[in-house]
Amino acid sequence: MKVRIFDTTLRDGEQTVGVSLSPDQKLSIAKKLDQLGVDAIEAGFPVISEGESKAVKMITSEGLSCEIAGLTRTIKGDIDAAVDAGLNYIHTFIATSDIHLQYKLQMTREQALEKAIEAVEYGKSRGLQVEFSAEDATRTDRDFLKQVFGDVAKAGADRIDIPDTVGYSTPEYIAEITKDAITATQLPVSVHCHNDFGLAVANALSGIHVGAACAHVTINGIGERAGNASLEELSMALQCLPQDQKYETNIKSELIYDTSRYISKIVGIKVQPNKAIVGDNAFGHESGIHTHGVLNNPLTYEPISPELVGRTRQLRIGKHAGIHGMNAMLEEFGVQTTDDQSKQILEKIKVLGDQGQQITDVELLSIASDVLGEKGIKKIVQLSAFSVSTGIGIMPYAFVKLNIDGEDFIGTDYGVGPVDAALNAIQKITGKVSELKITDYRLASISGGATALCEVTITVEDPQGNSVSAKSVGEDIVTTSVKAVIDGINRIMLKNMLKEKQLN
Amino acid sequence: MKVRIFDTTLRDGEQTVGVSLSPDQKLSIAKKLDQLGVDAIEAGFPVISEGESKAVKMITSEGLSCEIAGLTRTIKGDIDAAVDAGLNYIHTFIATSDIHLQYKLQMTREQALEKAIEAVEYGKSRGLQVEFSAEDATRTDRDFLKQVFGDVAKAGADRIDIPDTVGYSTPEYIAEITKDAITATQLPVSVHCHNDFGLAVANALSGIHVGAACAHVTINGIGERAGNASLEELSMALQCLPQDQKYETNIKSELIYDTSRYISKIVGIKVQPNKAIVGDNAFGHESGIHTHGVLNNPLTYEPISPELVGRTRQLRIGKHAGIHGMNAMLEEFGVQTTDDQSKQILEKIKVLGDQGQQITDVELLSIASDVLGEKGIKKIVQLSAFSVSTGIGIMPYAFVKLNIDGEDFIGTDYGVGPVDAALNAIQKITGKVSELKITDYRLASISGGATALCEVTITVEDPQGNSVSAKSVGEDIVTTSVKAVIDGINRIMLKNMLKEKQLN
Repeated sequence: MKVRIFDTTLRDGEQTVGVSLSPDQKLSIAKKLDQLGVDAIEAGFPVISEGESKAVKMITSEGLSCEIAGLTRTIKGDIDAAVDAGLNYIHTFIATSDIHLQYKLQMTREQALEKAIEAVEYGKSRGLQVEFSAEDATRTDRDFLKQVFGDVAKAGADRIDIPDTVGYSTPEYIAEITKDAITATQLPVSVHCHNDFGLAVANALSGIHVGAACAHVTINGIGERAGNASLEELSMALQCLPQDQKYETNIKSELIYDTSRYISKIVGIKVQPNKAIVGDNAFGHESGIHTHGVLNNPLTYEPISPELVGRTRQLRIGKHAGIHGMNAMLEEFGVQTTDDQSKQILEKIKVLGDQGQQITDVELLSIASDVLGEKGIKKIVQLSAFSVSTGIGIMPYAFVKLNIDGEDFIGTDYGVGPVDAALNAIQKITGKVSELKITDYRLASISGGATALCEVTITVEDPQGNSVSAKSVGEDIVTTSVKAVIDGINRIMLKNMLKEKQLN
Repeated sequence: MKVRIFDTTLRDGEQTVGVSLSPDQKLSIAKKLDQLGVDAIEAGFPVISEGESKAVKMITSEGLSCEIAGLTRTIKGDIDAAVDAGLNYIHTFIATSDIHLQYKLQMTREQALEKAIEAVEYGKSRGLQVEFSAEDATRTDRDFLKQVFGDVAKAGADRIDIPDTVGYSTPEYIAEITKDAITATQLPVSVHCHNDFGLAVANALSGIHVGAACAHVTINGIGERAGNASLEELSMALQCLPQDQKYETNIKSELIYDTSRYISKIVGIKVQPNKAIVGDNAFGHESGIHTHGVLNNPLTYEPISPELVGRTRQLRIGKHAGIHGMNAMLEEFGVQTTDDQSKQILEKIKVLGDQGQQITDVELLSIASDVLGEKGIKKIVQLSAFSVSTGIGIMPYAFVKLNIDGEDFIGTDYGVGPVDAALNAIQKITGKVSELKITDYRLASISGGATALCEVTITVEDPQGNSVSAKSVGEDIVTTSVKAVIDGINRIMLKNMLKEKQLN
C-alpha cells in the first residue's frame, strides 16, 4: 500500500527559530525534495511576506514532479495570495480546540466551523485542491472534530489533515481520531505530528496503520519547538519494519542522507550525532561486542544496511573494544599481529580510553607500531619557529621554519587570514616533500569566554586520496591550527609508511 | 503507578562512538543522575578495563541513593569483576536471536539458554541482585524468548529486561512480548529500547502500558548508533500525557534541563536544537501565529510549561512574525509604538527575513529606532586601526585604536592568544567608557578548507546584568572576532540608550 509523503520542510521547517530562507534557497530545497521522491511539498505561506510569495511563485513555475501546496488561514486574502503565487493546491487551517478558540481566536466553535466551511467553499470556487487542517485537532473535543471534518468534506474539501499541533498525542489517540476522520469524510486523511515528547514518528505510523493515506513530515524533523515527524525515520520505518511490510513510499531512500546534509547546511540546523538514520553515529560501532558482531554479519547490530540510505558503516575503537574488531581494523591497514601483540595493543587502547581519550585510526596505528617495534608516531616534520601578523589594513602574513628529517626549511606566505597565511607557508615547504592538500579545516570553541580553549580539526589528503584527520587544542587559535596541520602531515606520512612496510 | 527509571547513560551512553569517560567523569555523572532522582543506574561494564572497574568502584563507594548495577556477559569472570567493583546488582545478558547465535556467538539456542541459567545461578550464589537481558529479544523467536525468560526466572533471576537491541521493534510488538515476559516469569520486567527508527520512547511507553515496571533510558538519548530512549522524553511523557496520567516517576523534572546540559558537555555530544524537551528550540516560538497564541496563553502552543523542566520560554521574531508578538517584544524593552509604526517595523523585518537573515532583539530595536526617528544602530564605538601578532616563542600582543563618540583612544595588551590579546586591548579602553564584560566567546567554521568562513558569536554584559550577543562572519578569525566584540559593545549601548529614552 502506497503511503503519500507530504513534506513541509519549507513551511514547518522554516518556522524553526533562527531559520530564514531566501527565495533562491527555498527553490533549491524544493528541487532537492522533488528529486528525493516526495509526493507533495508545502512550499510556504504566501501571504506572510513578499519574499515568501515570490519563493512560492518560483517553485510553482519550476515544473517539479511533486504536487505543490501553500498554507493559508481560512481567510480569503490568504487564499487569493496562494492563487497569485501560482498554486492550485492549498492547505487551509483553523484551530478547533477550545483552548485555541478561547485564547487565540476569541471565537465560538460555531464561528470557527463557519470560517472553515467558507474557506473550503471559496478555495473550491477558485478551482483549487483543498486540504483542510483542524489545528490542535488532538486537543479538540472529539465530537466537535468529527463534525468539523464531516462539514468541510460536505463543503467540498479534497483532503483532511489531523495536526497534533503541540505533539501531545499518543499512538492510541491518533489512531482513534484518524478512524473518526475517515468515517466522517470518506476522504484521504493526512497525519501531521509534532515531536514534543519524541512520539511524532510513532504517532504518524499509528495513523497510517488505521488508514491515513498520507503523512506530513520534514527533513531532519525540523520545525517549531521540537519539530515534526522526520521524513527519514518515517519513510525508513515504513520501508523496513516487519509490521509495516505492506506499506511503501515513493522516496528514493538512497538519497536520504545526501538530502539531510544538504538541507541541514542551508537552514543551519545541525543534526545530533545520535539522530536516527541521518546522525553521524547512526551506523557507527565502537563497543567490542558490537564490532565483533557487525564484522561477522552487519545485521547483528544494524537494523538496516547503511547503503540503503546512501551511507557507509563506521567502525571505531575505544575502551569497550574487543580483539576481533581491533584486528579487523589493523588488517584494513595491512597490519598483521600475533595474539600476544593484539593483547598488548588492546591493553594500551583501554588505558587511553580510561583517561577519557578518543582513539582514532592513527592512534591505533601508532600504538600498533609501538608494539610491533616501531617508534610510534615519528615526528617526521617538526615546527621549529613560527610567527604571523594580521590586522586592519594589513594582509595577514606568516613565517614558518620546519625541520623535515633533520633538514631545515623556511617558508613565508600571506593569506585571507592568519591561519590561511600560515598554512600557505607550510604548504609551500611540504609540497616539496610530499604533495599534501588540506581538504577540511574546522574549529570549535570548547568553553565560553575570551580565553576559551579552541579545538581545531583538519583533514589532509595525499594525491592517492588517503586522508587523515588531526586535532589540536589550545588557547591561541592560530598557533593551535598550525600545530594541527603539522600533526596531520605527520599522521599521513606514518600511515603511508606503515602501509608500505606491510606490503613489502 | 510508579515507573522505575533505570538510567544507562554510563554504559549505553558511553558506548556512543567518540565518547570515552575517565573514572572521575563517570562519578560526577553518577552523582548528577542520583540528584535527578533516577531509581537505578548502570554504572558500567567492569570487566572491560581497569579504569572502568575503578570507576564503578568509586561510584559504589559514594553512598548514592539510587541502586547501582553493572553489566556482565553470562561469564563467571565478568560477574566476579562486578563483585570486585563493589556491586551487589548485575545486569547480565546473552543474545537469544538466531542471527546473533549463528553469526556472533556460534552457539545453539540450547547452549545460550544453558549459559543464561548458569550466569543467573552464579550471580545469585554470589549474593547479587540479578537482572537478566535476552539480547536482541525483539528479533528472537517468540516461543524461545518465553522459554528463556521462564527458565532464568526459575533459576532465580530478580528482574527481566527486554532489549530492542537494534531498535527494530514497534509499540505493538513490544507490548506482546512484554506481556509474554510478565506471564512467563511473574517478575518485574524492564524495557530497553533503541531509537534506530525514532520509536524508542513510543516502544518503551507501550511496554509500560501493558505492565513493564521499569524503563532503561539515557540522558539526551545517547548510546550506540541512534541511541536509546531518552530519559527526558520518557519521563515527561509519563508525567504529562493524558493517557499516562496514572503513571509517575521519581524524576525531579525541574532538574532535567540542567542535567542534560551537564552531561552533553562532559560527553561532548551535542543536542540538536529540535530535540524534544532539552533542545535549544523546544520552547522557542517564532511564527506570528504561534507567538500570538503563546502570549495569550502559553498552553496554546506548548504542551507543557518550560519551567516544569527547568527552562524558560523564548520568543523570536522573523519573517513569519505577526504584530502581536512583535509589539510584545518591543514592550519588553519599554518601546511603545503606534499601529502605523508597528506595521512599518514589521514590513522591514519581513524584508530582512526574506533575504534569509535572522532577526535578533537588537536588530528589532535597531529597526524600531529607525522607524521611531532614531538613526538605527549608531556606531558609538568604531574600530579605526588594529594589528596583532602571535607565533611560537612570542606572547601574542595587540594594538587597537578606537574612536568613541569622536574621540580617539589607543590600547595595547597581550593575551593567551591573538583574540584574547585584542580583546584585552579593547577592554582596556572601553572600561573607561562603560564597564562591559565579555562573558561568552564562541567560534565555528562555516565551511571546510583553510579559507573557510568562520562565525564568531560573543556575549557582552554590563554591570546591571544586561547582555547582548553579536555575531560576525569573515575569513580572518582574529579580525572577525574583534569586529564582533565592537558590534557587541555598540549593541549593548544602544539597548541601554533605548531603555533610558523610554523611561524618561
